Amino acid sequence: MAFSPLDSDLLSGLVGLPAMSAVFDDRATLAAMLRVEAALARAQASVGLVPAGLAAAIEAIGPDSLDIRALGKATALSGVLPIPFVKTLQACLPAEFEKAVHFGATTQDIADSAMALQMHAAFALLSTELVATLAALAAMADRHAATACIGRTYGQHAAPVSFGFKVAVWAAGIAEVARKLPSVRAEACRAQLGGPVGTLSALGDRAEAVVDTFAAELGLSRPSVAWHARRANVAAAGQWLALLCGALAKMAGDVVALASTEVGEVAEPHVPGRGGSSAMPHKRNPVSATVILANAQAAGAHAASLVASLAAAHERPAGAWHGEWHSLATLFGLAGGACMHARTLAEGLVVDVPAMARNIGATRGLVFADAASAALAAKSGRAQAHAAVEAAATRVRASGGTLRDELAGLLDAADLDAAFDPGPAVSAAAARVAPALAEVRAALAALSS
Amino acid sequence: MAFSPLDSDLLSGLVGLPAMSAVFDDRATLAAMLRVEAALARAQASVGLVPAGLAAAIEAIGPDSLDIRALGKATALSGVLPIPFVKTLQACLPAEFEKAVHFGATTQDIADSAMALQMHAAFALLSTELVATLAALAAMADRHAATACIGRTYGQHAAPVSFGFKVAVWAAGIAEVARKLPSVRAEACRAQLGGPVGTLSALGDRAEAVVDTFAAELGLSRPSVAWHARRANVAAAGQWLALLCGALAKMAGDVVALASTEVGEVAEPHVPGRGGSSAMPHKRNPVSATVILANAQAAGAHAASLVASLAAAHERPAGAWHGEWHSLATLFGLAGGACMHARTLAEGLVVDVPAMARNIGATRGLVFADAASAALAAKSGRAQAHAAVEAAATRVRASGGTLRDELAGLLDAADLDAAFDPGPAVSAAAARVAPALAEVRAALAALSS
Amino acid sequence: MAFSPLDSDLLSGLVGLPAMSAVFDDRATLAAMLRVEAALARAQASVGLVPAGLAAAIEAIGPDSLDIRALGKATALSGVLPIPFVKTLQACLPAEFEKAVHFGATTQDIADSAMALQMHAAFALLSTELVATLAALAAMADRHAATACIGRTYGQHAAPVSFGFKVAVWAAGIAEVARKLPSVRAEACRAQLGGPVGTLSALGDRAEAVVDTFAAELGLSRPSVAWHARRANVAAAGQWLALLCGALAKMAGDVVALASTEVGEVAEPHVPGRGGSSAMPHKRNPVSATVILANAQAAGAHAASLVASLAAAHERPAGAWHGEWHSLATLFGLAGGACMHARTLAEGLVVDVPAMARNIGATRGLVFADAASAALAAKSGRAQAHAAVEAAATRVRASGGTLRDELAGLLDAADLDAAFDPGPAVSAAAARVAPALAEVRAALAALSS
Amino acid sequence: MAFSPLDSDLLSGLVGLPAMSAVFDDRATLAAMLRVEAALARAQASVGLVPAGLAAAIEAIGPDSLDIRALGKATALSGVLPIPFVKTLQACLPAEFEKAVHFGATTQDIADSAMALQMHAAFALLSTELVATLAALAAMADRHAATACIGRTYGQHAAPVSFGFKVAVWAAGIAEVARKLPSVRAEACRAQLGGPVGTLSALGDRAEAVVDTFAAELGLSRPSVAWHARRANVAAAGQWLALLCGALAKMAGDVVALASTEVGEVAEPHVPGRGGSSAMPHKRNPVSATVILANAQAAGAHAASLVASLAAAHERPAGAWHGEWHSLATLFGLAGGACMHARTLAEGLVVDVPAMARNIGATRGLVFADAASAALAAKSGRAQAHAAVEAAATRVRASGGTLRDELAGLLDAADLDAAFDPGPAVSAAAARVAPALAEVRAALAALSS
Repeated sequence: MAFSPLDSDLLSGLVGLPAMSAVFDDRATLAAMLRVEAALARAQASVGLVPAGLAAAIEAIGPDSLDIRALGKATALSGVLPIPFVKTLQACLPAEFEKAVHFGATTQDIADSAMALQMHAAFALLSTELVATLAALAAMADRHAATACIGRTYGQHAAPVSFGFKVAVWAAGIAEVARKLPSVRAEACRAQLGGPVGTLSALGDRAEAVVDTFAAELGLSRPSVAWHARRANVAAAGQWLALLCGALAKMAGDVVALASTEVGEVAEPHVPGRGGSSAMPHKRNPVSATVILANAQAAGAHAASLVASLAAAHERPAGAWHGEWHSLATLFGLAGGACMHARTLAEGLVVDVPAMARNIGATRGLVFADAASAALAAKSGRAQAHAAVEAAATRVRASGGTLRDELAGLLDAADLDAAFDPGPAVSAAAARVAPALAEVRAALAALSS
Repeated sequence: MAFSPLDSDLLSGLVGLPAMSAVFDDRATLAAMLRVEAALARAQASVGLVPAGLAAAIEAIGPDSLDIRALGKATALSGVLPIPFVKTLQACLPAEFEKAVHFGATTQDIADSAMALQMHAAFALLSTELVATLAALAAMADRHAATACIGRTYGQHAAPVSFGFKVAVWAAGIAEVARKLPSVRAEACRAQLGGPVGTLSALGDRAEAVVDTFAAELGLSRPSVAWHARRANVAAAGQWLALLCGALAKMAGDVVALASTEVGEVAEPHVPGRGGSSAMPHKRNPVSATVILANAQAAGAHAASLVASLAAAHERPAGAWHGEWHSLATLFGLAGGACMHARTLAEGLVVDVPAMARNIGATRGLVFADAASAALAAKSGRAQAHAAVEAAATRVRASGGTLRDELAGLLDAADLDAAFDPGPAVSAAAARVAPALAEVRAALAALSS
Repeated sequence: MAFSPLDSDLLSGLVGLPAMSAVFDDRATLAAMLRVEAALARAQASVGLVPAGLAAAIEAIGPDSLDIRALGKATALSGVLPIPFVKTLQACLPAEFEKAVHFGATTQDIADSAMALQMHAAFALLSTELVATLAALAAMADRHAATACIGRTYGQHAAPVSFGFKVAVWAAGIAEVARKLPSVRAEACRAQLGGPVGTLSALGDRAEAVVDTFAAELGLSRPSVAWHARRANVAAAGQWLALLCGALAKMAGDVVALASTEVGEVAEPHVPGRGGSSAMPHKRNPVSATVILANAQAAGAHAASLVASLAAAHERPAGAWHGEWHSLATLFGLAGGACMHARTLAEGLVVDVPAMARNIGATRGLVFADAASAALAAKSGRAQAHAAVEAAATRVRASGGTLRDELAGLLDAADLDAAFDPGPAVSAAAARVAPALAEVRAALAALSS
Repeated sequence: MAFSPLDSDLLSGLVGLPAMSAVFDDRATLAAMLRVEAALARAQASVGLVPAGLAAAIEAIGPDSLDIRALGKATALSGVLPIPFVKTLQACLPAEFEKAVHFGATTQDIADSAMALQMHAAFALLSTELVATLAALAAMADRHAATACIGRTYGQHAAPVSFGFKVAVWAAGIAEVARKLPSVRAEACRAQLGGPVGTLSALGDRAEAVVDTFAAELGLSRPSVAWHARRANVAAAGQWLALLCGALAKMAGDVVALASTEVGEVAEPHVPGRGGSSAMPHKRNPVSATVILANAQAAGAHAASLVASLAAAHERPAGAWHGEWHSLATLFGLAGGACMHARTLAEGLVVDVPAMARNIGATRGLVFADAASAALAAKSGRAQAHAAVEAAATRVRASGGTLRDELAGLLDAADLDAAFDPGPAVSAAAARVAPALAEVRAALAALSS
């Protein structure tokens, strides 16, 4: 079945990260649920609530031994997976453990804790991709710190920058999201244990101790109180994933634009057979950027759905929690695919330095209008200078001449040389690279800690 | 793999309609693509552009013969499925047809047309569920047209209605969406054929004729011009699906509230093993309503993502189109599951008429305040009457007495009898059922045509 | 106050249509509410429920005589505007009418019906802008039906089209949304009259007759039953507005790209002082396209919020209805601004035909690769031809030579002439203009009816 | 003008926080822009780039002296407010300062920095409301730590909790969002200074020093590099506001449900004239909860729109930035209103302890099924016990008898006493209050630091 391309055998290799699929597949879900029940047993055994051998007995059950189709059928009836799962577990265990398994817990405890484990693994995959991506972008920014390139605002040539500056801004934009990964992970990957109404009533005075051990066993954060119906941290994880995709989409959108035929300043790494067209043999489409943009679009929508889950009724809601199912894993899938392709771009983007130089000259000097205006302002006042240059620019557009020629009467040669020298602008851009990369390095440090 | 519960073997039986999964699975996608290429061949053969035998040769290739994993791997490289698909097709065909297959078409022509075929089948499934749901709701509304029941506004008892009236409003709300199914389907299920840039340039003066035949062969609508980069009808289909889920969620939300313990006026159809709790043996959770609410929440988000695809760049975009992949099929999946559960509710909702009667009395007459106020207003003016009844209501809340007793000094017995008689309110509600059901019948007629 | 730029005296002139502001300002809201109460009185008087003079008495109260600040203060207390509004009304009327005004109605009846009136006026404003926009685009498409221009897919040059074809696709995309305006308006602009719980209980057997007259008086559609808690048509109006903005954003996005410095094929209409930069005297930013894109982005989000309102609890909900307040009028404001700027583009876009011709040659023949491949395929089979041309394309990119030269050994001069002639591609594009414009004309007819 | 109810004189008092309106009104926007230009002048004067007197001269211009209508008109022409604003500024200043004002800056520097100042003030308002709300909720949770109350899952009675536990969960849910306010504020409230393309090229080697002083002057964070086109922190602020509204909506939704007539466990604070109905004198609608729910719904949508702004093209985009205008201030407005009403609920919620006790008994013992099952499991094994209690529960529902009676044959009196004693469940709930409130106190500390 494949409603989502992330789940399709035809499309998942294009839109998603294979390792991420492994984290969230049905078998992995069951493995995580088994691990949660075992951790619960271990935590409860440590305070004498259940027999000491239970945890090991649960751990002895391999996820491969469970019948996914049968569980699916039973879930369609029961309304929630952990009910048939626990029944199956009981059937697999020695009779003596039957009443001890899942003691004091509720279905959502198991499902949420298992999801927390899966998210923890998923964050690790994203971290790996992000470290590689940021490192490669930082290197590219350094390499091209002084590579002259035109800056564009509103799609128009504005003033020279450097290509390294552009890359550094991409990287800083990704870094300011990426560096939060550890805190978002810690907040979202919490053990869930509350029992039917979140009060741990079956555990008596050993409740808090059990939660401590349970969380520690799973390597998950320890919540102050059950989060069955307070879902801000789940939604925050989704929002972070959407921001991450968005920051990658900033780069991807620029790549599509810079790779457009007229601009031609970059190309996606060339892989034979990639980015072709069924009809047009000359095409080299920006495949990675396309996937990033598509995934980012979907991620924004899914994050919005998770926010709607916050208004969860009472102790455990009908619908608001279940709404998360449709979006949480998918967001990791979308982010995984976006990170995979971002890394491809970061590690292999083909940069056409001569094309960048050529494009700076495309406006016949108009992009130095700001500098020319400043030079003129020193003589005639800013408003007048701005107006004079605006008029000259209009003539340049109409005539096909150059701005330098149009201003020849108003500025002397030295001023003109200075105004039409891209050097200072490029140097200014280059000077911005290091501070931006400091932010990138901070993110890399955060991800590595 | 299962990022989406709709694609999970553990969860799809709960959240989705099985027949819908069949419509959108990978094999069905390939079958639709084969059908599209065959229709293209047939249409082009009819005007002499390709050999007459090509279509039959394509049709002879069964989707089961295609290697999904290999196609998936090749798609991850090429960036779009139809490229390896067409190559595979060529490899399967006699050499004489190799250059004729896919003639003049572009990848998006095949993908969009195949999706249109799948949507067409998906709409039919929804139509079947909706017809059953609306018919059952209409019968329920008729049956309970005069069943007294309290009306609630802002969660508070307001004035009596009838249960049939409530059901008729649910049904009218679903009907006003459902009746648009045929037009939404016709607008969304369009043949796509434009070639690389939408101009059908390879087809010369036979272009329009080919599109005519191609669309007719597929049973799809015939667009005025290729819709590669005008996606309003696709997004409109997604919006309609979100509205449909929303209209079903109106009913589902009311069911959850009416099935709540204190209210207890309805229960989901009892199926042994359904809606239980792993911890609480007495629970009977509203499973169907829960799924509808969850699916509706996700559907709203996906529809928003499709709207973002409208700003598709140039002749075919990088990303905006691909963003649809993540949402379009999923929306049908969500709607399919919501319709399946809505039908379950419509056909089997357990109605507790005595509980409804009991609840009307729960406020000790306060819900007749409006009628009492009107009776009083006839004597003392409306503002004064409103104030007097408001004061009496406050005393009722404080004292535990009845509003009738509190107003005994202000109105005579006949007026009190009249004011505290639920009959007129229930009759008024019953009188609204027929007009509402006329809307339902119109929808049923539209769905059946 | 100005949380929304549509409401800001600093920004509304840029982002919104002034006439739309007038439709939704506070004074207009009160005028609409007065009109609704008067229509209710007239409808009820016609069946003898209230005195004949009431309607005229209400109509005699000018909206300017109402104290907006006082009403605002009272609304903050009461929780809903119609309560203090009705009290104010009663205070303005002769004592004899006091108990007759607002008879049998509830607050939401007044608020929804007033909003329906405002929406009706708002749709008329949009219709006017759309008629002008579509007419201007149709004329532009006709004018440039055969103006050669490069077609782009994935941001890359693909094959020649004509500029008229591009414009026709924009227009068809807007038209397929615009033509639904009359039906969306009819469905959304419904009279609302149900009384406290939607049953019209106070009106007895005259209820349906009163609704008939009430709707007719207001020029609004007549619902089958009160729509207090079935909001699909409201959300559908919002979705339509989002689609409209999206279809305009398709054009706007293309304008930004086509107006980019390297492409330079179009420019926004030049108005002195428009699109400048505080820093860069040469800039001519695409202001209208920018506003359309910004408004479309916001519109998509607001439409999603309206869908969430469908799950309205019971007879009238706490929150779901009120959520509409934040989005419905705003969507009209966003669409109004987008339409205003779309009209500006449609009526004044500056087209640079020589630049279009120049860009076709920018790839040194690569865009004719498809045609060359087809010519070659006639000799060597399609797969081989595709591969040969792909290889030649790679050499062209590397060498700076032309594709024609690279293929000179494989095709003869006549074949080369034919393959590298943009004529057939442009003619094919031109041939698509008329069918697309037929769709535009159908929309114009629908809007004018 | 009033497209947004937050901007309407009729509705803003209901849906928004008055002090928040003051932060974002047009006059305040101009004041913030003046402050930004003055800070820029001061920072540049400190390194000798502009005359020392400029800052004071700018500060001498009062925002009240600026003509809002004229600026609005000029903005509609120029496309962005800072252009006419700077021109007006120059006209107000002595001629000697004319060329020094706004030196090296771009329009977005001014607009973003001014918005950062306004956001900073807005966060302070929210902080104040949140401190009051959390403190009041903590007190309520303490007060009712042991007040018995039924816990509900899927809308059904599940097991006893305490009302203090419910409140503590609300508070912890709000606290886990609220405690991030300082970091979200620091990240979002950044000085923006980059010049036309973000490189600060006009400032030469004094660029970084100017940014340091500029940010310090404004009390804003110092970004590593201009954030013209990396907007994650802006979107993150919007997402946080949506989460905040969502966490408040959790409480508000529960209040609506608990205040529903059948439940009747809480009521909104009674204020004469509040929550009434135009038609029903007895109604007491939950006004504050309604506004919170409505605002939260809209906030989720606006946050999604901000995420779409991340894909900002090149150095400064056409549309993506402008899209923020429609959502950023509005989100603060929505959150302000939600916080205001949340505080009202927290400080004044009316709690009906006897009603809570009564509701626990409403199921005739079914809510003790879990405890009874556990007692039985000690004898017969858990599966059998679960089945026996499930069967007994079915008989209770059918017969109107009590679960205790139904189980009398299976358990002895002491076991029955123990199983049907709400004490342990309530104690367990009470024991969870302190850990939850520790999270609340941590948030209060964070907000106060």
